[in-house]
Amino acid sequence: MSIDYDDQNIFAKILRGEAPAHKVYEDDDTLAFLDIMPRAPGHTLVVPKTPARNILDATPDQLLAVMKTVQKVARAVMKAFGAEGVLIQQFNEEAAGQVVFHLHFHVLPRKAGEPLAPPRSDIEDDAVLAENAAKIAAAIER
Amino acid sequence: MSIDYDDQNIFAKILRGEAPAHKVYEDDDTLAFLDIMPRAPGHTLVVPKTPARNILDATPDQLLAVMKTVQKVARAVMKAFGAEGVLIQQFNEEAAGQVVFHLHFHVLPRKAGEPLAPPRSDIEDDAVLAENAAKIAAAIER
Repeated sequence: MSIDYDDQNIFAKILRGEAPAHKVYEDDDTLAFLDIMPRAPGHTLVVPKTPARNILDATPDQLLAVMKTVQKVARAVMKAFGAEGVLIQQFNEEAAGQVVFHLHFHVLPRKAGEPLAPPRSDIEDDAVLAENAAKIAAAIER
Repeated sequence: MSIDYDDQNIFAKILRGEAPAHKVYEDDDTLAFLDIMPRAPGHTLVVPKTPARNILDATPDQLLAVMKTVQKVARAVMKAFGAEGVLIQQFNEEAAGQVVFHLHFHVLPRKAGEPLAPPRSDIEDDAVLAENAAKIAAAIER
């Protein structure tokens, strides 16, 4: 855990149950939930349950646990959305686009010929998020 | 190993020593070398030494080994290039931008206010690549 970890970040609040999230998968070490400003339907975030600012201070255990869940979610979104590919992105520090300072990986379903939507600042409709979360949850291999 | 793994891909050739690469780090399980069409100085690729097409078929051992090296390289490029952040990208299947079908992670040093160069098709000068590889190699924590 970095000294630069602020436990008031929104993902820490989601992990403590103090903020809502459209969860798609959870195990002892990780949580996966939908990005509320998705750049593609099914855009999911995967985080460790323990504190880490980003990849620069993460432990090997956190990295392994998170990547196993990233893989599960990647496979699930391929099925759930008929995706033809998956883009994984992970931002470290503000200069690289990090906005929430709790380690997270973006999992983005992709289809040929459909450009990724630009980063957005409006929040997706809650019913759409709920439906997409349910689709992914149903497609996760357990 | 996926049935869709073609061992004639360029990264497999680099791993077998049949094609050149500007290596920055190597251990028993992984290799890190410079992207020859860098989107930022120090743009590095990290691959497992064993076959995997992408994240969809990788094993947990491959994921852990690769992420440990991604972390080492991320920390090193922060030092070697005075970067203020690091972007990690990983493409799965052609629809998501995958061009070489051997699992690889992109590690991109970032600075505030310096936009990432668009994907390019021209190869960087060999002397520049050699100098940048040496900088990163020198900054790797062992």
